[in-house]
Amino acid sequence: MGIIVINFKAYKEGSGKKALELAKIVEEISSKVDDYIAIAPNFLDMSEIMKAVDVDVYAQHVDAIEYGSHTGRIVPEMLKDIGLKGSLINHSERRLKLADIDFVIEKFRNLGLTSIVCTNNVATTAAAAALGPDFVAIEPPELIGSGIPVSKADPEIVRNSVEAVKKVNSNVKVLCGAGISKHEDYVTALDLGTEGVLLASGIVKAKDPRFALEELVGLK
Amino acid sequence: MGIIVINFKAYKEGSGKKALELAKIVEEISSKVDDYIAIAPNFLDMSEIMKAVDVDVYAQHVDAIEYGSHTGRIVPEMLKDIGLKGSLINHSERRLKLADIDFVIEKFRNLGLTSIVCTNNVATTAAAAALGPDFVAIEPPELIGSGIPVSKADPEIVRNSVEAVKKVNSNVKVLCGAGISKHEDYVTALDLGTEGVLLASGIVKAKDPRFALEELVGLK
Amino acid sequence: MGIIVINFKAYKEGSGKKALELAKIVEEISSKVDDYIAIAPNFLDMSEIMKAVDVDVYAQHVDAIEYGSHTGRIVPEMLKDIGLKGSLINHSERRLKLADIDFVIEKFRNLGLTSIVCTNNVATTAAAAALGPDFVAIEPPELIGSGIPVSKADPEIVRNSVEAVKKVNSNVKVLCGAGISKHEDYVTALDLGTEGVLLASGIVKAKDPRFALEELVGLK
Amino acid sequence: MGIIVINFKAYKEGSGKKALELAKIVEEISSKVDDYIAIAPNFLDMSEIMKAVDVDVYAQHVDAIEYGSHTGRIVPEMLKDIGLKGSLINHSERRLKLADIDFVIEKFRNLGLTSIVCTNNVATTAAAAALGPDFVAIEPPELIGSGIPVSKADPEIVRNSVEAVKKVNSNVKVLCGAGISKHEDYVTALDLGTEGVLLASGIVKAKDPRFALEELVGLK
Repeated sequence: MGIIVINFKAYKEGSGKKALELAKIVEEISSKVDDYIAIAPNFLDMSEIMKAVDVDVYAQHVDAIEYGSHTGRIVPEMLKDIGLKGSLINHSERRLKLADIDFVIEKFRNLGLTSIVCTNNVATTAAAAALGPDFVAIEPPELIGSGIPVSKADPEIVRNSVEAVKKVNSNVKVLCGAGISKHEDYVTALDLGTEGVLLASGIVKAKDPRFALEELVGLK
Repeated sequence: MGIIVINFKAYKEGSGKKALELAKIVEEISSKVDDYIAIAPNFLDMSEIMKAVDVDVYAQHVDAIEYGSHTGRIVPEMLKDIGLKGSLINHSERRLKLADIDFVIEKFRNLGLTSIVCTNNVATTAAAAALGPDFVAIEPPELIGSGIPVSKADPEIVRNSVEAVKKVNSNVKVLCGAGISKHEDYVTALDLGTEGVLLASGIVKAKDPRFALEELVGLK
Repeated sequence: MGIIVINFKAYKEGSGKKALELAKIVEEISSKVDDYIAIAPNFLDMSEIMKAVDVDVYAQHVDAIEYGSHTGRIVPEMLKDIGLKGSLINHSERRLKLADIDFVIEKFRNLGLTSIVCTNNVATTAAAAALGPDFVAIEPPELIGSGIPVSKADPEIVRNSVEAVKKVNSNVKVLCGAGISKHEDYVTALDLGTEGVLLASGIVKAKDPRFALEELVGLK
Repeated sequence: MGIIVINFKAYKEGSGKKALELAKIVEEISSKVDDYIAIAPNFLDMSEIMKAVDVDVYAQHVDAIEYGSHTGRIVPEMLKDIGLKGSLINHSERRLKLADIDFVIEKFRNLGLTSIVCTNNVATTAAAAALGPDFVAIEPPELIGSGIPVSKADPEIVRNSVEAVKKVNSNVKVLCGAGISKHEDYVTALDLGTEGVLLASGIVKAKDPRFALEELVGLK
């Protein structure tokens, strides 16, 4: 099937012990389905999760800098070093300057890390695609955390994003996000031409995350 | 000939009375040549310059916001209201987030203002072009204020930018900047396929700005 | 009586022609009362207002920089140069880094400009006072634009701010803001030990700004 | 003796395996002296270091937010959760807004975490002290990474900072930093009234970090 990336954000339900539990659930369900399910926990939890769980781990953000005199920053090479698969870049809650998005994508290309650039509309999706990342993830900010799935509420933005990306750089793959939690919304996202979905609260803040994830992938 | 946009920056030599004097010099020389010469003074000097001088005036920056509860910000509509021609957007000294660049370009399109998006390399030039601004101005940051003209030091970045823009959106025009002050560098910029140049210190901080500008346009 | 500073923000009702009209109303009402009434319009409108009206004009913001290669920024010296009285600093809609607040206050002291540092609680009020500005303006962010006057909703924060400032640096004067528009709230603010009020929407977005201001100063 | 906090920054020499090695060196030397030696590695390395080494670990930065929909951010509670001792706050390479410094200090007080607020001059030191953190660390930015020790180059700024803090809030302890790497500079810092030093490159980028640290604490 498709790709599912779960952003743990700075949710209490997605940090510390809960993050590890959630990662284990993802690992378990991953083994039962064909979907590729990856997670993006916070920086502090990554090391332990990666030792305990066989799931691809992404950062939620990375700074557009080289090793050096930077305090409180994370360098792309550090992600590689610790064994991360890649990173979300330019999430709507962590927007980056254009030049910095480009810096990180280019750096990731050289490091063999996977870049997932989040965008807010068709125009910025096309612009991001022009930078040649691995993925663009279109997420209308007004739908993030709304519970209203983008694939149902605004299929045009998804379809047009897929088309715009094809025109600019057909090597770039498209994800979509915002409000997705049900299996049918995930399937619709794939039908609209995306490779998968980026989600957060629908799983992480679900009363029963295991059940929510099983439902998403169609096991329930 | 071509287009010349002079960024007054926050130079002492380009603010207050000096800004007005400089604007008058631009007006005078403008009338003697075919080149389109415009200026981008700071916000405080615009109103007076626009009353005194018949030259197109651009802002150096504008905020990606609507009218409302924002303190210390400038709304795109305010630029229109006061009679500005447009604005520089995303200058290397005032980088914007991708979503904000898109917001301003889209807003300018509706308001009939001219958008000049500054970029730092071929990749970001292509990305900016995908957003459909009027102009992209490629300026390698390491050459800004260096006195080393981009058109001589790095003709490839200019040529490749022009080509990349053509591929992405052929309606977008290209300027280049950084280190330009001599007539031959300006001519080279045009030969490389740009519509003109964006410059600052080469004129504004010149010992004799009138002479420097006359030299640039080939009157000396 | 006291001090009234009216922040025009980026309100449509406080920019362009409306800004000039409002400035004239302030000038007229100023002449009828003992209160000191000043205004803080946006950068683009200042020059014209200052020529047309005899009212002290403040900036809403200023950048913590020296003259130089800064695009889209306003240097403290530029405010002095154009004849401004001073500036709001660190408004809740334009928060600054601690080191930058200090830079601007120190610069203003040397330039003879008046610094009004906005703060959000008693602790930051004390901290700002330690930097030695002319004024600290305590504004609980949750009340800004609410129509609920801080002097009524949270008199303790005002009283404690006044006391905290006295302890740290008794030369610093205190204003308060947020939700104030009625005469009695203004009077209460003075009774709580402040020198006056900072306000915005209560006047600028009032159906009849003249009436609102007359009411504020007790003429109605 | 005193307090030594070693900021690993985003140095290559202070991340990944090198970070762990360095932490072990600190643990070992710590056991031989009376000085309190703590470290501030990057977020990704903390978890492993804390399992392997018995040394107090601080964050280099923390975001001024609550648990919730924030991507790529670290919440104060997460630091507590993972067992950190506290955090540097407002380092010159990661300056914060005044209101955010206050937010973190207040949050740390409730969580029992140790707050070390970095400042750049006597005025900001006094302002930071007014917020009631555990420590203020005065570091003139121009000396950071310079190899010129603040305690020798500018003893007045240290002495005056200590005095200013005493006046504002005598519970706040003072560290100083910038350019320190020699034992005598550390001793001078203590003689000037500080509780210790904050340093980075002098140890982390030393050819032989063990030797450098032994020298700092007077074992060589």
